[in-house]
Amino acid sequence: MTQRAVCVIGAGLIGGSLLRAAEQAGRTVWGASTEADAADAHADGFDVTTDTDAALRRAVETDALVVLAVPLPALPDVLRRVDAVAPTCRLTDTVSVKVAVVDAVARYAPRARFVGGHPMAGTAESGWTAGKADLFAGAAWVVASDDGLDLDVWADVAELAWACGARVVPAATDEHDIAVARVSHLPHLLAAVLAAVGAAGDDELPLALAASSFADGTRVAGTRPELVLAMCEGNRDALLGAVDDALGRLGAMRGALASTGGLAATVHAGHAGRQRWAAARDPQGMQVKRRSSLSALRDIGRRGDAVVGWKD
Amino acid sequence: MTQRAVCVIGAGLIGGSLLRAAEQAGRTVWGASTEADAADAHADGFDVTTDTDAALRRAVETDALVVLAVPLPALPDVLRRVDAVAPTCRLTDTVSVKVAVVDAVARYAPRARFVGGHPMAGTAESGWTAGKADLFAGAAWVVASDDGLDLDVWADVAELAWACGARVVPAATDEHDIAVARVSHLPHLLAAVLAAVGAAGDDELPLALAASSFADGTRVAGTRPELVLAMCEGNRDALLGAVDDALGRLGAMRGALASTGGLAATVHAGHAGRQRWAAARDPQGMQVKRRSSLSALRDIGRRGDAVVGWKD
Repeated sequence: MTQRAVCVIGAGLIGGSLLRAAEQAGRTVWGASTEADAADAHADGFDVTTDTDAALRRAVETDALVVLAVPLPALPDVLRRVDAVAPTCRLTDTVSVKVAVVDAVARYAPRARFVGGHPMAGTAESGWTAGKADLFAGAAWVVASDDGLDLDVWADVAELAWACGARVVPAATDEHDIAVARVSHLPHLLAAVLAAVGAAGDDELPLALAASSFADGTRVAGTRPELVLAMCEGNRDALLGAVDDALGRLGAMRGALASTGGLAATVHAGHAGRQRWAAARDPQGMQVKRRSSLSALRDIGRRGDAVVGWKD
Repeated sequence: MTQRAVCVIGAGLIGGSLLRAAEQAGRTVWGASTEADAADAHADGFDVTTDTDAALRRAVETDALVVLAVPLPALPDVLRRVDAVAPTCRLTDTVSVKVAVVDAVARYAPRARFVGGHPMAGTAESGWTAGKADLFAGAAWVVASDDGLDLDVWADVAELAWACGARVVPAATDEHDIAVARVSHLPHLLAAVLAAVGAAGDDELPLALAASSFADGTRVAGTRPELVLAMCEGNRDALLGAVDDALGRLGAMRGALASTGGLAATVHAGHAGRQRWAAARDPQGMQVKRRSSLSALRDIGRRGDAVVGWKD
């Protein structure tokens, strides 16, 4: 496996974990970040500065893979630096939405050899100090697999994911956003709605009677609002589709409850969905040939499987 | 504390746990149940038969408290036996909705001295073998506290709850049903909707990317559908109100997302609700005088507090 060097811009929870994991896997790593995270990373012995241009110049010199691990709103500024200093670099990212990132790259750093990524890992905390080398162990790491992407960079990103202990789920950029709208962003919005309904009354009786179904159903409503907003608002189009699906199902259920009093269709569909999810977990993972077709890779993700290494 | 004898009709998860807990607290206990649960209870040394009339006759002889721990659809038949054999007995129940039970008692056993109850405990399993003596330890046990109820029987039910390790939450019958619709039944329906949306696509990509927010948000969709249906459909009127509240909030959010792209109102309301719930947990509990006014008792529940014993 190539031991390509890795330059990480943004040493927060995700970028900081990435630096640790890649170094532990034997990679040469360095990066740039905000003052606080750079200082904390430096104190832990990592070569992380506040000088983004210097970090990017070193990436050009060594043909390193540049990983943008900054929040979506910070991307334009960073991409402008990429275009100025390392315009044709090997480039990936870790942002939880992908269409918006592709749009930003096309606009601000159009010459970069970009293949998007989304490691499906995280905690409620943030910053360098919250990171850890095994954050990605066993996690899914989506790698964008749209036609026309650079297969060499695709391989770089896949090998970085594997080095961090993750499995690669290939997906088209738009299909990724639709999927996470349904299984990651909608859960946050429904949790918010449930928590608001539970706390809506003037008295404390409902919350005093709330037990595990309410606790579990509202858990992610405890996430810091700015994180939820950045994630969900950055995926507006796909999220509208997921919300409309939920509204349609809830409205149909309301109609059935009001007319016949029956909830069987809703409850059975939910039970079947949960069972399908339970059965779909922990894919075995497969190996693919280097330079497999992107179409064949996408099919692996659509089957719910993942890529865990090279064949031969 | 009175050591009133307890006759339990229905020795499943709840009734079976109640028999064990009350016996452990020194009470004389017996009951009646279906063949399978009666046999299992008998094998464990409990006086549980399939002869409901015989169990009720013994309750009349000893002025015992009769606890109906059967599912809502089984109540009419059991109440007819109560009216025939023990028409004026001290009577409570453990059903998770309360208005429907009050209606059934008024219709089938109108002379019974009935004070409804709802121990907020349970597991996904059912039957005598799933029961355990400490099922109610630390749990809330709602005791109906509507004006006009028999205060002696209220005290009987409260003392039984305390003997089982629970704290008593006094509530008006209709306020109980509204509260559980919001914090117990709506979570099941939103979980079902979320699970169905996640599993709606033709491909497996969404479920393959589903992580903890989806896992937690859909957990109760894994409950046996017949249990969810019995619980939710038995609380139709209150549940319609809760569903309409959720639909209104989800619709408003949909509008905001489509127009301005902003989700701040939804996310902040959800975060505030979750925080209010977290702050409301584990009430200290208070002592009240015997024969406190039912209105004063209801206020305790509305404050989110609970009654844990008698004063003096």
